[in-house]
Amino acid sequence: MTQTTPVDELRGLLPAGRVVTDPAETEPYRHDWTRMPAGRPLAVVLAENAADVQAALGWAARHRVPVVPRGTGTGLAGGATAVEGCLVVSTERMTAIEVDPATRTVVAGAGALTSAVKDAAALHGLWYPPDPGSFRISTIGGNVATNAGGICCVKYGVTTDYVMGLDVVLADGRLVTLGGRTVKDVAGLSLLKLFVGSEGTLGVVTRVVLRLVPLPAPSATLVAWFDSTRAAAEAVVAMSLRVRPSMLELMDTGAVNAVEDFRPMGLDRDAGCLLVGQSDAPGTAREAEVAVMVACCEEAGALRAYALDDPVEGDLFLEARRAAGPAIDALGDVLAEDVCVPVDRLPVAMARIEAVAAATGTPIPVFAHAGDGNLHAAIVRTPGDEDSARRAQEAFEAVLQVALDCGGTISGEHGVGRTKVGVLPRQLGPDVMDVGRRVRDALDPLGILNPGVLW
Amino acid sequence: MTQTTPVDELRGLLPAGRVVTDPAETEPYRHDWTRMPAGRPLAVVLAENAADVQAALGWAARHRVPVVPRGTGTGLAGGATAVEGCLVVSTERMTAIEVDPATRTVVAGAGALTSAVKDAAALHGLWYPPDPGSFRISTIGGNVATNAGGICCVKYGVTTDYVMGLDVVLADGRLVTLGGRTVKDVAGLSLLKLFVGSEGTLGVVTRVVLRLVPLPAPSATLVAWFDSTRAAAEAVVAMSLRVRPSMLELMDTGAVNAVEDFRPMGLDRDAGCLLVGQSDAPGTAREAEVAVMVACCEEAGALRAYALDDPVEGDLFLEARRAAGPAIDALGDVLAEDVCVPVDRLPVAMARIEAVAAATGTPIPVFAHAGDGNLHAAIVRTPGDEDSARRAQEAFEAVLQVALDCGGTISGEHGVGRTKVGVLPRQLGPDVMDVGRRVRDALDPLGILNPGVLW
Repeated sequence: MTQTTPVDELRGLLPAGRVVTDPAETEPYRHDWTRMPAGRPLAVVLAENAADVQAALGWAARHRVPVVPRGTGTGLAGGATAVEGCLVVSTERMTAIEVDPATRTVVAGAGALTSAVKDAAALHGLWYPPDPGSFRISTIGGNVATNAGGICCVKYGVTTDYVMGLDVVLADGRLVTLGGRTVKDVAGLSLLKLFVGSEGTLGVVTRVVLRLVPLPAPSATLVAWFDSTRAAAEAVVAMSLRVRPSMLELMDTGAVNAVEDFRPMGLDRDAGCLLVGQSDAPGTAREAEVAVMVACCEEAGALRAYALDDPVEGDLFLEARRAAGPAIDALGDVLAEDVCVPVDRLPVAMARIEAVAAATGTPIPVFAHAGDGNLHAAIVRTPGDEDSARRAQEAFEAVLQVALDCGGTISGEHGVGRTKVGVLPRQLGPDVMDVGRRVRDALDPLGILNPGVLW
Repeated sequence: MTQTTPVDELRGLLPAGRVVTDPAETEPYRHDWTRMPAGRPLAVVLAENAADVQAALGWAARHRVPVVPRGTGTGLAGGATAVEGCLVVSTERMTAIEVDPATRTVVAGAGALTSAVKDAAALHGLWYPPDPGSFRISTIGGNVATNAGGICCVKYGVTTDYVMGLDVVLADGRLVTLGGRTVKDVAGLSLLKLFVGSEGTLGVVTRVVLRLVPLPAPSATLVAWFDSTRAAAEAVVAMSLRVRPSMLELMDTGAVNAVEDFRPMGLDRDAGCLLVGQSDAPGTAREAEVAVMVACCEEAGALRAYALDDPVEGDLFLEARRAAGPAIDALGDVLAEDVCVPVDRLPVAMARIEAVAAATGTPIPVFAHAGDGNLHAAIVRTPGDEDSARRAQEAFEAVLQVALDCGGTISGEHGVGRTKVGVLPRQLGPDVMDVGRRVRDALDPLGILNPGVLW
């Protein structure tokens, strides 16, 4: 007589093919993009609907098995990194997308790619704005879990601003629906907003209702070169008082050179800093807005600043900016930071990050959602060099401290995950940590959801 | 030897003049605008700073005294109605306002009037959009507690979209700071958003950091008259697919006539429905947007639809709409509803509310933030007439059910308070109610904060 194991029980709860246990098959579900050390999962559930997730979480609760939810695993903070003996719950098969033009909403399975959501909306002349760097490969469920941002945020806000409804499976396997297609809803606590950005620690999102907006007008573009990041940052502060750019992105000389190495686009390798902005204001207003942006750059001492009224030409600079992420990844082994500071602290933060690079002897190219004060400092390690790894870790901590010293945050976009969990109490302090823990304990008393993240 | 009472102890904890116990002096702190039956407070604390609120809540926790927080008491759902033997904590003296143009933020005491925040921002060429009907007399703390909306929401969103930071005193008297001046912050749970709209059940907000935006361009205005609310509602649905109006408001014939009785403005008393929309798109785009809105009205069968390019002339119609609230209040004894439905359900909801008025023999003038599907149905009772009161209560419940049948919410703006608490479980269901209660119990285990609200 054979003993029935817990994993056998799990297999019995789900249709065939949705529980994977062979190490060769579970391997692709152990890591996110940090490639930080990961545990070996007991099993991976490839959920196809909310009922699968309910069965998985109910089982995990009964057996006290930690659950690590994941989409496509493009996270940059270790939020989807498997822990030893866990159940990985993947939502990547839940890809249904349905646009409702009458209410300007879209309902998407958690595993739908963000770009697929955007494409489906565009077929109806509608737009889902959030555009994290990963939008072509990350899932909307992951975007909700991290409250993802992107280039559009400076004018159009972040993921939470577009989430109108969520289906969530709780730690005990219950499925709840929060919100829906109603634009304004203040009935009860804002639980919907609480789940956005909770990094899989309060429940597993299975379905999302998102607000859409009409497609924006074509953009006019600002291109400005500066001899220092500080001057560029000062131009950003000046602009933010006068116009609402639809993007405002900065690349320092390290980032510009990484892009030129990766995909030559004729950028100026010798200037200190590139600022690219856009206005999508309708009609003639976009040229007026970009003219203000050009003036702000000139007043801040730009080497060159000019407007591109042709959207196609302007989008080349947008593509150069979008190439910064992959270009910097190609530099080798990178610790990705996403600190964010109040906009007026941007010049100071940029200068202090340059000082950290010098002090630790570590290259730290920076590209930034400058209009939001959100800095992607990419700390480059030499693969296989232990001293470089040590200095990089020192630089990583130092950059987080720069953000805190500026009254900012250790994460503007990626989440805390497992890479920044040790630093979170320094930002929040004991009382806010306690409030968060109480909320977590109330919803997941066994602590089985994504342990090691946030706490 | 005299016995020291708990209230004596409270007096000892606060500077002179901040604890009021004389019934004549506490009377103005018992009610909100519903004038629903209220209890008699043990005392009222007129807090001047967070430390006062901390002392008050610490005392209340020690003595298990229920706490009812309030601003200026303009709520429409009984959220600030005193309960018997409670401590009322008023934040109305905490009125400091400081604008920081460099980060486009304002820091305001919870007791600052919303209009004062707007005025302070305007001095710097900046704008705080949320504009609930009460914005000239309600406090920003109250706006945060209810996640207040207004006319701007159709384009600019609600209060939570502008809250970047909060100081909150918890049920045990601890003061926590959530968020701040950083635009994007995903470090830790979204506790900031959880407190917005929590109606005083999770803590007492003492200070608010708000996002500001540049002042919008002057508006062009759409005015359209319809012979039925259904046709007007259909025009709204058509418009929402093509443009982003900065306001889109509807008044049915009952609301139009109430305004004409209250303040004659030459509105058409005989047409069935008035729709007023505005576009604040920059440059020439605003005329183009209003032209689209006019076309949508004509296609929906408007009696008349026209554009007003002169902002002053257009603002007269905005004032007529703003007069609807006070005009309807002047009709006598009103139960104010604020249900909200998905925008495509607007025609059905309007028709069903008219049927409720007919079936209950109760006048229900309706004015609406139509672009959001948010309906202010004003249920008019004849003062002193018991049968009218009974029918009005029946109509009140029926209108809430209309919203639920349409997949909407019992409250889009005012909050649940004490007037709709019995209906909340019908909207949320037992599991979401349970999640909310768990969160409340985690943060206020004694249940002393605003008992009777939400639960």
